[in-house]
Amino acid sequence: MTIAAAISELAGFLGDRLSRAERDLFGHGRPKNRAPFLPPDAVAYPETTREVARIVTACAAQGCPVIGRGMGTSPEGHSQAMRGGVCVDFSRMNRIVEVNHADMDVVVQPGLTQEILNRHLQSTGLFFPVEPGTNASLGGMAATRAGGIATVRYGSMADNVLALQAVLADGRVIRTGARARTPAAGYDLTRLLVGSEGTLGLITELTLRLCGQPEKISAAVCAFDRMRDAIDMATAAITYSIPVARLELLDSATVAAVNAYAGLSLEQKPHLLVEFHGFQQSVAEDAARFAELVDDMGGRIFRWPALAEDRAALWAIRQNAYYALLASRTGTRAVAIDLSVPLSRLRDAVEEIRAEIAASPIPGPMLGHVGVGHVQVLLLVRDQVPGEVEAASVLARHIVERALRLGGTVLGDHGLDGLSDMAAQHGPGWDVMGEIKRALDPLGILNPGKVVPLPH
Amino acid sequence: MTIAAAISELAGFLGDRLSRAERDLFGHGRPKNRAPFLPPDAVAYPETTREVARIVTACAAQGCPVIGRGMGTSPEGHSQAMRGGVCVDFSRMNRIVEVNHADMDVVVQPGLTQEILNRHLQSTGLFFPVEPGTNASLGGMAATRAGGIATVRYGSMADNVLALQAVLADGRVIRTGARARTPAAGYDLTRLLVGSEGTLGLITELTLRLCGQPEKISAAVCAFDRMRDAIDMATAAITYSIPVARLELLDSATVAAVNAYAGLSLEQKPHLLVEFHGFQQSVAEDAARFAELVDDMGGRIFRWPALAEDRAALWAIRQNAYYALLASRTGTRAVAIDLSVPLSRLRDAVEEIRAEIAASPIPGPMLGHVGVGHVQVLLLVRDQVPGEVEAASVLARHIVERALRLGGTVLGDHGLDGLSDMAAQHGPGWDVMGEIKRALDPLGILNPGKVVPLPH
Repeated sequence: MTIAAAISELAGFLGDRLSRAERDLFGHGRPKNRAPFLPPDAVAYPETTREVARIVTACAAQGCPVIGRGMGTSPEGHSQAMRGGVCVDFSRMNRIVEVNHADMDVVVQPGLTQEILNRHLQSTGLFFPVEPGTNASLGGMAATRAGGIATVRYGSMADNVLALQAVLADGRVIRTGARARTPAAGYDLTRLLVGSEGTLGLITELTLRLCGQPEKISAAVCAFDRMRDAIDMATAAITYSIPVARLELLDSATVAAVNAYAGLSLEQKPHLLVEFHGFQQSVAEDAARFAELVDDMGGRIFRWPALAEDRAALWAIRQNAYYALLASRTGTRAVAIDLSVPLSRLRDAVEEIRAEIAASPIPGPMLGHVGVGHVQVLLLVRDQVPGEVEAASVLARHIVERALRLGGTVLGDHGLDGLSDMAAQHGPGWDVMGEIKRALDPLGILNPGKVVPLPH
Repeated sequence: MTIAAAISELAGFLGDRLSRAERDLFGHGRPKNRAPFLPPDAVAYPETTREVARIVTACAAQGCPVIGRGMGTSPEGHSQAMRGGVCVDFSRMNRIVEVNHADMDVVVQPGLTQEILNRHLQSTGLFFPVEPGTNASLGGMAATRAGGIATVRYGSMADNVLALQAVLADGRVIRTGARARTPAAGYDLTRLLVGSEGTLGLITELTLRLCGQPEKISAAVCAFDRMRDAIDMATAAITYSIPVARLELLDSATVAAVNAYAGLSLEQKPHLLVEFHGFQQSVAEDAARFAELVDDMGGRIFRWPALAEDRAALWAIRQNAYYALLASRTGTRAVAIDLSVPLSRLRDAVEEIRAEIAASPIPGPMLGHVGVGHVQVLLLVRDQVPGEVEAASVLARHIVERALRLGGTVLGDHGLDGLSDMAAQHGPGWDVMGEIKRALDPLGILNPGKVVPLPH
């Protein structure tokens, strides 16, 4: 049982769609922004579900790891090849299979990206509402249970995947879920696969729920003197049931970085970016109520872009924040820590984490989908500066511990060396995940080392 | 390994909270409305999670089946004791553990009912939006993935359970999910347990998402000459993105039954009942757009009840429909078939099923949460009339096949003798469910015969 034997079998039927070129291996094992760099032994470019099944079957026979990969935009290193093996690159499976207008759903292949899907849907009056802020593949978004700036209104991938086709660890092809909106009796295999990070199956087709494009969109930029006021405002909007479609927080460091990066002149204060979707009058009413609350909280709304392109520019601020922050400190990479706490703890969590960061040598700007209690801390680490990697690691550990102590969750794992966040968060539930993994992938070939511990 | 040995051990620590009284056994094995009647050997009334764990541990040691039970309102026979054993009745675990106002969530025990929870929440400005139309227990609603009249707006139990505590088949206690709105990395064990019908674990605590009570509610009753027009109207409301909070269909047979049952005088035509939730202006706007569409579709809105008690009376029509239909044919029981099809197939599905029913001797009125493509057919069977049971069984089979052929799903199973709907709907995915079941409950003691086949 060897990886080499598996690869030579794959080469037999994939031909030049199996690559061992160094350029490919490097491109597929490198996480977007964190060490370690763990390339696969080969990269396969299947074009059909049947080919994926054949790849997995051949790898299973040889005990060879199989790692699925979309666009590789995850900052969490989801497609690192911890034990080598074959990376299944879905870039050639990127078709829209069918758009069902009347049912407001779409069937797609996993390599299609969210941006391209939405570009295609533009003329249909429909759109897919999960927007992670990078041009991620829809298969990767499902595998990592991605959310985004509109999760507060439309939910994450957990809420918007109706059905899947997947190849299991033994090469079996299954279909889960249905286009009908009420699922059949039975275990929710769709939601078991969503978020499983390629460890239980490789997603080869997705049926996604679509939404009607809103008749009216209104967006605003608001500044606050203090971070706590911005957070109180976000919390108030949710508890007053104002149906915000997007609600994003940027701290003042992030605002400074986007000013520099994009030549803007936002006041260097914490900001909320907000958007409302709906019919004419309801959007006007939502916006008016929001504005009233901002006023009560001592904030200031200083822009209501009326044109679609001005709104796009507004949201580009948020989408470029990551790159702006990277550019704000030369020679840096960003360790992203995504956490979510109950709304009532958000202010405490942010203030405590800010104090922790202030006492460390590492800059740690914060932003997030604050309407769902989500905050992203980007630790801007210079690998070459002595002590920074260690300091960042201690800081990350403290941040995670603090989030968990406040009843929060941490997305992704921040201890690839043993996945210890998982044990802390799930307790005995993590053992149960291991039991499910062993039942469905007894050889442990699917994306080893993710979600559950590496097999011995 | 015997059931008797398990029961005598349970009696040791439960005392008179373990019952073998015939009255209890009968009360706990009788499905709401369908044969066969399969009582357990004993009924346990635990008061704590620890006691539930102790019960399951003792039963596991003896290979004794354990069947959880809430209020027993399911029409699908979920708590029938297919192999005897111990019924765990959660009626003494019915407390609200905590209401977190600021976070809009609540922690409850599984025996609490939805109606009592909402009565308690009334003064808080919050409510729990899943309303199955009977006073079901929240644990049972989670176990059966219940939806209800507001699923179209607020989702089902799959969307509204944030976290669970559960006792697994070996007595382990796990916690899944979190109060934070963005779940941690890891498999979605919460949504695996929701809908698992007590076959993977017994739910002993639930954390539920709450919503703000709407500032303004508006409701209407609309009549249509033809069933197809009512369905076209429902479909149009969804595709025009009118954010209905409730949208229910009653066919004319159902309307006749509720008229007789409740002394009403609705026109004997297909009806839609609709409700809008939101701020003042948005509700007015939603209602106006809906009314315009009804007009276009040739329907007629003849009542907009302004007072809360009149709206309650309106929804009581829907909630009593089941009992009204039972009363409409003496000596009958109702075999409920819940199906859901993609919206675009709803009209065809309903018309084909109506034709099928018309050609049979069994009355089969239809109603449903039509905004999510759901239709319930109630076959009114008289067990004592020769041939009716057989005719109903054939009819049910045809209806299920038709729904599946139109891309639909069927809730519950309609072939307790082998669960054949499950194989038809899930294909190889059903095998995967069996693999998960065996991994988590290798002895097959948790609610045997549900979701996956009975062990040999």
